[in-house]
Amino acid sequence: MHLDGSEAGQASPDPQRRPRLTPPIADARRAVRTALAAAAALPEVDPHDDHGPERPSPLHPGALVLVGLSGGADSLALAAATAFEAPRNGFRAGAVIVDHGLQPGSDAVAARAAEQASTLGLDPVIVDRVAVEGDGGPEGAARAARHAAFDRARVATGAERILLAHTLDDQAETVLLGLARGSGPSSLQGMLPDTGRLLRPFLGLRRTQTRAFCADSLLEPWDDPHNDDPSYTRVRVRTTVLPVLERELGPGVAEALARTAEQLREDDEALDGLALEWALELVSQTDDGAVALDVRGLAADPAALRQRIIRLVVSAEFGVSLTRAHTLAVAALITDWHGQGPVDLPGVRVVRQNGLLTFHPTT
Amino acid sequence: MHLDGSEAGQASPDPQRRPRLTPPIADARRAVRTALAAAAALPEVDPHDDHGPERPSPLHPGALVLVGLSGGADSLALAAATAFEAPRNGFRAGAVIVDHGLQPGSDAVAARAAEQASTLGLDPVIVDRVAVEGDGGPEGAARAARHAAFDRARVATGAERILLAHTLDDQAETVLLGLARGSGPSSLQGMLPDTGRLLRPFLGLRRTQTRAFCADSLLEPWDDPHNDDPSYTRVRVRTTVLPVLERELGPGVAEALARTAEQLREDDEALDGLALEWALELVSQTDDGAVALDVRGLAADPAALRQRIIRLVVSAEFGVSLTRAHTLAVAALITDWHGQGPVDLPGVRVVRQNGLLTFHPTT
Repeated sequence: MHLDGSEAGQASPDPQRRPRLTPPIADARRAVRTALAAAAALPEVDPHDDHGPERPSPLHPGALVLVGLSGGADSLALAAATAFEAPRNGFRAGAVIVDHGLQPGSDAVAARAAEQASTLGLDPVIVDRVAVEGDGGPEGAARAARHAAFDRARVATGAERILLAHTLDDQAETVLLGLARGSGPSSLQGMLPDTGRLLRPFLGLRRTQTRAFCADSLLEPWDDPHNDDPSYTRVRVRTTVLPVLERELGPGVAEALARTAEQLREDDEALDGLALEWALELVSQTDDGAVALDVRGLAADPAALRQRIIRLVVSAEFGVSLTRAHTLAVAALITDWHGQGPVDLPGVRVVRQNGLLTFHPTT
Repeated sequence: MHLDGSEAGQASPDPQRRPRLTPPIADARRAVRTALAAAAALPEVDPHDDHGPERPSPLHPGALVLVGLSGGADSLALAAATAFEAPRNGFRAGAVIVDHGLQPGSDAVAARAAEQASTLGLDPVIVDRVAVEGDGGPEGAARAARHAAFDRARVATGAERILLAHTLDDQAETVLLGLARGSGPSSLQGMLPDTGRLLRPFLGLRRTQTRAFCADSLLEPWDDPHNDDPSYTRVRVRTTVLPVLERELGPGVAEALARTAEQLREDDEALDGLALEWALELVSQTDDGAVALDVRGLAADPAALRQRIIRLVVSAEFGVSLTRAHTLAVAALITDWHGQGPVDLPGVRVVRQNGLLTFHPTT
């Protein structure tokens, strides 16, 4: 082990171009170390607890993690930092490279990334060529194919996490995209640091730091031409929207967006958890397969909880995700009651009767 | 009363230019009617309840409301719509015009707005010339002076609300400014529809609608040159940032921002209310003037509530508003306890001892 980290980079004969342990490298390694430690410190999940939101399982001693590697600066820096930190913290680290086959020569890009991963000491190194097709636009389809490949790699290797290199800049872009959709607080929460399958150690680092990491480590990242293609909304957010925000509102907008996402996630988690607890107290099954909620209990709840309880019951019992307008229509049976008739939603009819809000399946 | 609303506009001799009851006028009137009805439907506030957040009192039958009038399109439309709706719904309507004295001829602008208010039938019409000075930059100082004038007008006339003409566009701008500050969910909530002192009936209307209202009513709004001065951050948000967002992310961004603000406000209100309830259960006074919180209770709470309880106790007992970093440092005494020493905050020292988190005043 050398403090200058040379075992994690490619050695160079030119003494002017030796890898150095610079602040970007130290920051990235610390980010990986901290993320692995946090995942390892999670409490075990009780397999019999099927109430409650799905919680991530802890990372176990000796576990394998796989870095999702594109060959770009972010994921190359993550691969190098993980190759350095994982073995020193009692974990094994490999890589999974997804060849989306969307550009000529994508196989060569994947092969080069695989070679870099092996040179960094990652093992196993999996290359998965996927077929990008189906719904959700080009970005959505590529994302779906990529995540299916991650799932296959996890199952095939028994890896406990896929490490993804999303940075603070990616998080800020995600929050802005969520804002533009306007689908409520949950769309502003950005990406989770740890979903139990995916671990994102770099959410606190800037993209400039991962580029500096590669330069300081003499690692040569691949520049994805898609990253400059303005037909992607996310590229326009990166190249146009965020720079305008920084120029007009002052620097620090990206950090502000990421910070906001973190607090909104905490708020939403707290309310979701409470909604679940309270729903269990208010809910009852009726003889004819309907579900009933106690009106008086719902009326006493704050609006944010009342609406979450309604959404939760409809989603859990009927598999239907209510829009805000639908949710508010059901809530009006409680807060604005003047004897109105049932509310008909996709797949569900909601009736207020005898102090109960009853949800009946339709069709 | 004429359905074409002509009594609310200036009569014109040219038959081609007669005021017409157009959709913008109908929408604005409905917005005022709905806001007045919602304020009138609020429950009475128990004057002995000094726990709990301050809640707005209801608008009483026959109450006076004052439109805050600048003479610009938004507030002129609000003045006209309120002059029409208030008497038809059992309220009296006047106007308060604040002359900030910041531009040459501002007294003439104020006099003209006062004349328009009287022509519309508003009574009383108050003109208050204020001195804009003090901290907070030019926008902040003008705002402080304006709100002081609103308070004087309320007290002098016994008005139960000042009606302000902030639109959905203003709300979107406020949310973006809050995002850029990154001071957490509460900075994203935008402006309240009803604070108990201020009522904002137009938060669901676009600025284009208030301009159309004026044109259709043959009302001539004043164009404040400050609205085009790019040295104001808000002006840059309006003229540059929002148009770029709409262009790059698609139309509907302003609506999305306003919708998000509404839901975030609900979430924050619910959590603030719960934090207050739970804090009262966890808190105790010690003999030496300190305040103590039960560690076990705090540990069981979701993070968002734990942090709010800490902030609430420090703010209520010591008048100190904690930053997020300070709040998290106190929370670490609960969630990341390894025997660390006290946390020193501005004016407060926090110690964990004997299962209690104790807050001591310092200096």
